[in-house]
Amino acid sequence: MSGDNLAPARIPAPLYDRLAVIGCGMIGSSVARAARARGAVREIAVFDLDMAVRARAEALGFANEVAASMADAVRGADLVVFAAPPLSIAPAALAVGEYLEPGATLTDVGSVKTAVAEGLAQLERPDVFVIPGHPIAGAETSGPDAGRANLFQGRWTILTPQARDDAGYARALGRLTAFWETLGANVELMDARHHDLVLAVTSHIPHLIAYNIVGTAADLETVTRGEVIKYSAGGFRDFTRIAASDPVMWRDVFLANKDAVLEILGRFTEDLQALSRAIRWGEGEKLQALFTRTREIRRGVIDAGQETREPNFGREEGG
Amino acid sequence: MSGDNLAPARIPAPLYDRLAVIGCGMIGSSVARAARARGAVREIAVFDLDMAVRARAEALGFANEVAASMADAVRGADLVVFAAPPLSIAPAALAVGEYLEPGATLTDVGSVKTAVAEGLAQLERPDVFVIPGHPIAGAETSGPDAGRANLFQGRWTILTPQARDDAGYARALGRLTAFWETLGANVELMDARHHDLVLAVTSHIPHLIAYNIVGTAADLETVTRGEVIKYSAGGFRDFTRIAASDPVMWRDVFLANKDAVLEILGRFTEDLQALSRAIRWGEGEKLQALFTRTREIRRGVIDAGQETREPNFGREEGG
Repeated sequence: MSGDNLAPARIPAPLYDRLAVIGCGMIGSSVARAARARGAVREIAVFDLDMAVRARAEALGFANEVAASMADAVRGADLVVFAAPPLSIAPAALAVGEYLEPGATLTDVGSVKTAVAEGLAQLERPDVFVIPGHPIAGAETSGPDAGRANLFQGRWTILTPQARDDAGYARALGRLTAFWETLGANVELMDARHHDLVLAVTSHIPHLIAYNIVGTAADLETVTRGEVIKYSAGGFRDFTRIAASDPVMWRDVFLANKDAVLEILGRFTEDLQALSRAIRWGEGEKLQALFTRTREIRRGVIDAGQETREPNFGREEGG
Repeated sequence: MSGDNLAPARIPAPLYDRLAVIGCGMIGSSVARAARARGAVREIAVFDLDMAVRARAEALGFANEVAASMADAVRGADLVVFAAPPLSIAPAALAVGEYLEPGATLTDVGSVKTAVAEGLAQLERPDVFVIPGHPIAGAETSGPDAGRANLFQGRWTILTPQARDDAGYARALGRLTAFWETLGANVELMDARHHDLVLAVTSHIPHLIAYNIVGTAADLETVTRGEVIKYSAGGFRDFTRIAASDPVMWRDVFLANKDAVLEILGRFTEDLQALSRAIRWGEGEKLQALFTRTREIRRGVIDAGQETREPNFGREEGG
């Protein structure tokens, strides 16, 4: 499956009447595209702070309406999705708080949940159901053109609901779960702090490490940048892809998830020191034991369907 | 292009009469497959220390002869390619030194060149042309089944010739260059020490970092291994692929290229400490500046044809 082709889906009755997506980057535009392709909502309004992005959204036509203001977008919407860099989400939501429909569900797609949830908790609208969320569908690409209707297909979306036990909230949570499932995602509920720790391991630290190694390589005096690029097929190339992710979003991720990131980074650094010592002392058995152990994790990733069995490199060759 | 399909190639006259490949793993079996597919040699003999691998090589049929001993394989060969883990290459070559044909070319595919070249320099056969080499065609896969005839297509092979200026050596170097070009590779000559520094950056450190992060993730108490695997799509998955590479080969790489690896690792660690401090102090501008700068490197990798423009994640979805 590729591009916007989707498996022949039973089109359900729309789950929401009007979806407002705030932020038309890769993820926001994918939410709009997927919701439309799957018939998950009756109509879609989008907004982006950047005028050029709004114009592009208009041209791409993935929404029924490109609103002129955030207030215009959320007005009448029973589902509002904030798809902005983590530190912009709560301020944006609070700014349009008064325009939200009573009974609307407010969610987001931020890669950090504790900081976003704390910000959204400031919203003084008990008649609005705030359910922070995070679809795990990373990519190096960004911007409205990079979105795809099948981006969430087979991926996990984590929701970190508030500690509310009223029936209305439970219904809103059920409906939002159905929405993501209609977009093809598997939904999991999680505590916001635990989400941030899990994602620090599986996403934030890998990105930090990739950014760091690409930065280190670019600054060496003994090896030229041209050489680094020319001989990147030995492993470095994969890091450049990860390190090409959206700079503003990732800045926000590290600022907003500082504690979990620094905790995992501490462990990583300790382990790296031990590994460095094993190399220095020529401890081959220790190295081989680690390298053998990490293969098991890979098998887990493949068995869990998180990656195809075919090696990635196949498609990159012969070109 | 995929699998063993090759562009319709003008079949040249065989460059060598008999190719002996010692080691039938992914790279060794690819050398045999590619040499046969391209008609680069008249006949191919292979050998592997592992009896099970020899049986598999026999079954796969990529060679004319699966020799019963290393001596049998190299006897009569005018090109001998050692495709073994770095620390096994020189000992193997020295062990069969007396059986090498006068005028034969001896090369290897090791990812480390200084240590291998120093070992091979011990060969007391001035009538044999020793030309260490390294095709940069990494993959997570290993073993004789993982080889492919087009593995070297469009990739770089680095040769690190000895400091010999006799005409025979120059001719042997020209012929070996033509051999790799016939297999689809671009050939570059380089000083062995510089090769080791370049590869430390573009391959060895990326692998070390990947092994380390996968190991760290597996050992956490606060995040389960199941969670790490389940939510690996956010970046971690790519590291698991790199960290699934052959453990013995990579043990040898780090032992054999200790100095260059520790030098680059030192720089990496310094940079990571600075990045960690920027996160701790909330220095958003510093983070964003680095994350923006690393994007340029990615553009270089794409522009240099080291990766397709299509994002990698496309093929992994919809499954």
